[in-house]
Amino acid sequence: MNAEQSPLLTDLYQLNMLQAYLQSGRTATAVFEFFVRKLPDRRGFLMAAGLEQALAWLEGLRFSEEELDWLRGSGLFSPDLIETLRSFRFTGDVDAMPEGAVFFADEPILRVTAPLSQAQLVESRLINLLHFETVVASKAARMVLAAPGKRLVDFGLRRAHGAEAGLLAARASHIAGFDATATMLAGARFGIPLSGTMAHSFVQVFDDEARAFETFAKARPDNLVLLIDTYDTEAAARKVVALAPRLREMGVKLHGVRLDSGDLAALSRAVRGILDDGGLREVTIFASGGLDEDDLAGFTRQGAPIDGYGVGTSLTTSSDAPALDCAYKLEEYAGLARRKRSTGKATWPGRKQVWRSYDGAGRMIGDVISVEGDAAAGEPRLRPAMREGRPVEPQPSLAEIRAHAAEELRRLPEPLRKLEPGWNYRVEVAPRLRRLAHEVDRRIDAIARS
Amino acid sequence: MNAEQSPLLTDLYQLNMLQAYLQSGRTATAVFEFFVRKLPDRRGFLMAAGLEQALAWLEGLRFSEEELDWLRGSGLFSPDLIETLRSFRFTGDVDAMPEGAVFFADEPILRVTAPLSQAQLVESRLINLLHFETVVASKAARMVLAAPGKRLVDFGLRRAHGAEAGLLAARASHIAGFDATATMLAGARFGIPLSGTMAHSFVQVFDDEARAFETFAKARPDNLVLLIDTYDTEAAARKVVALAPRLREMGVKLHGVRLDSGDLAALSRAVRGILDDGGLREVTIFASGGLDEDDLAGFTRQGAPIDGYGVGTSLTTSSDAPALDCAYKLEEYAGLARRKRSTGKATWPGRKQVWRSYDGAGRMIGDVISVEGDAAAGEPRLRPAMREGRPVEPQPSLAEIRAHAAEELRRLPEPLRKLEPGWNYRVEVAPRLRRLAHEVDRRIDAIARS
Repeated sequence: MNAEQSPLLTDLYQLNMLQAYLQSGRTATAVFEFFVRKLPDRRGFLMAAGLEQALAWLEGLRFSEEELDWLRGSGLFSPDLIETLRSFRFTGDVDAMPEGAVFFADEPILRVTAPLSQAQLVESRLINLLHFETVVASKAARMVLAAPGKRLVDFGLRRAHGAEAGLLAARASHIAGFDATATMLAGARFGIPLSGTMAHSFVQVFDDEARAFETFAKARPDNLVLLIDTYDTEAAARKVVALAPRLREMGVKLHGVRLDSGDLAALSRAVRGILDDGGLREVTIFASGGLDEDDLAGFTRQGAPIDGYGVGTSLTTSSDAPALDCAYKLEEYAGLARRKRSTGKATWPGRKQVWRSYDGAGRMIGDVISVEGDAAAGEPRLRPAMREGRPVEPQPSLAEIRAHAAEELRRLPEPLRKLEPGWNYRVEVAPRLRRLAHEVDRRIDAIARS
Repeated sequence: MNAEQSPLLTDLYQLNMLQAYLQSGRTATAVFEFFVRKLPDRRGFLMAAGLEQALAWLEGLRFSEEELDWLRGSGLFSPDLIETLRSFRFTGDVDAMPEGAVFFADEPILRVTAPLSQAQLVESRLINLLHFETVVASKAARMVLAAPGKRLVDFGLRRAHGAEAGLLAARASHIAGFDATATMLAGARFGIPLSGTMAHSFVQVFDDEARAFETFAKARPDNLVLLIDTYDTEAAARKVVALAPRLREMGVKLHGVRLDSGDLAALSRAVRGILDDGGLREVTIFASGGLDEDDLAGFTRQGAPIDGYGVGTSLTTSSDAPALDCAYKLEEYAGLARRKRSTGKATWPGRKQVWRSYDGAGRMIGDVISVEGDAAAGEPRLRPAMREGRPVEPQPSLAEIRAHAAEELRRLPEPLRKLEPGWNYRVEVAPRLRRLAHEVDRRIDAIARS
């Protein structure tokens, strides 16, 4: 039971509900939408990601014999249900914003239209995939905006929350504009460019830094980046200068040095000076060590001579906002719009669409949320992504998704490019959607009174 | 390439370093230790978890033909290295604190002793596993302390960071004292008790709550818990009372009701009153909806009549502290102790052990960190976990690990049982370890001057 594929990676209540739907003959078409209720503090927008994984998971969804055996042995479910699950496939439709899309609170970014049991069972894993990649893409976009023109590399596998998180964080950050990742499997699986230097342990094994550098250079003559903060950063920079002629003799091109601790702005200036004085003007400075987007913005403001950043924990855990207040909610069943009215969690009913308008310069100026058939002005944001259980072809390549994300960031209004936007983008709920909500409320109230 | 098993789930620099170690003949024994540098805000202790997964991963570590092919095709590595990787196995030793152990900053919770290339290659994934389960177990322990005597259920799959995070969060929280999880695969893989109710969508499909409740009851006659906040919580509680005779006729025992929104303390009192007045004194009240340990402590303080909690996002993302400042550092190579001296990140060198002392009542009173062979007083905390690549038998069962964790929580000093400890547990660095650090520094300085 591979966790990434198993349909048992779901909440028990999904199967409880399937059992009840089966017994009560509730098999009509249901419409669920995934959206974020409220943006986290300091976030002026979010960036959608995870659709490719969600579609692949839906397409491959089936119960193995091993899984059916386990369900049977659990004693929790009727033989009828288990027999139904044997032939379970997802045959529904999905409409979604493309990955890389900039979106806002209450805007559905994915809609599932399928027989009720299918649309219900997939809830847990769909949220699990879309939520996480969206969290990371949204965080990564902030770093991209904070460090214009700098090389950004994902260093965050080790503190990502498990294997899949490490892997998908590399993908989501690459979509948002990161240049490369240190995670090899992300290179193997998604073709993301890899980047990596050396660890402090390497220097410690040799005790003698210069000897460690030379040994590493021999083994890695291409794209050589030396880590220079194990003992004393400025002393190590001078060792690099002293070693440079020897590296040239060996035919090694020194690409850069990496700083991983201390006052990085001050050290980068000192090291830049030492390298320049030593004739190593073309050697780049790469910085890492617990950085987040505020650090990056600080270095940008100070004009620190740093050419690129390795960002780890703050990126792959989205440390200041590791979760979004998101939901996957029933909006229609058997042709009737539905809504949840729980305190503080009421939803807009029905199949919805989002339209976006732009100013003359191509910057986004406002969105409208309405029912699907409404003729609102602007660009419709949700598009067909899957029909009858098959992804709509052609699916975009990772490079195309990344280009789309870059275009979306270019179209952001100026205040949303800041780390503290303090400004709300205009998202309107159209009159037709408000009327539908009232109609649904009247129907529910009538049933409650009857 | 299954992400949970693949040795390519590592950082590029690990293989870069292996290449250099291979070429320079650095094959002696290395000792690395995993520890946390600093506890997050508001945390007075941490709880170790993830060892079982770490040992299983080490034992199963090998490169498949597919992975070797990819490495070859990447053009990043020498044919020599790829040939070496073909027969790569982990043959080293691991010493560790058992899962469920309470530990503090600077205390190693795991030590790897192995040929350098092995000990180095495993770094990224070992941290990835130990870090995440420790994060969640430590967070879950706070919830367990905040809600004494209450049933706690993990509801956090959907906002956990990917598949493995959802699965391992269920395990880590169960170790720390959670009673059950909603994640089915965690039941299938680890045997953790499952718990689940129904979603709002179920009620919405019927519009009519009473009809939804009855349909669900027919399908799930055991352990029935009804969700009563979709429209109006108190009205729904009265519907439950009205439905009760019918359920009894059907032979269904109503176990509880669930509240998922609104002012849970006030609603629980109102609902308790309605249920009691309706003769349903034995029906329990279960609460959920964006809860964290502070909410739980608040309900405990107010004496809210809530019997159990479903906790999701705050648990599985450890939302206030989604990452630990942890490291896996080289402490010895070829028989010589080593240390990193980078600003703010200096480490204690050598193979270390931690000893713990207790007062007469069995409460912990202080720890000592020293070199392994030191004869400090107290209970040694690191124990053999793997020898020559094989886990030391018998490995504890999940139930035994959970019992150990409960015992550790019982032994906590009183201030550490609070959510705001504001008090530091005493952890001493023994004189022998300080002397060793000085010796290492003298050696490094001598090399630097030479």
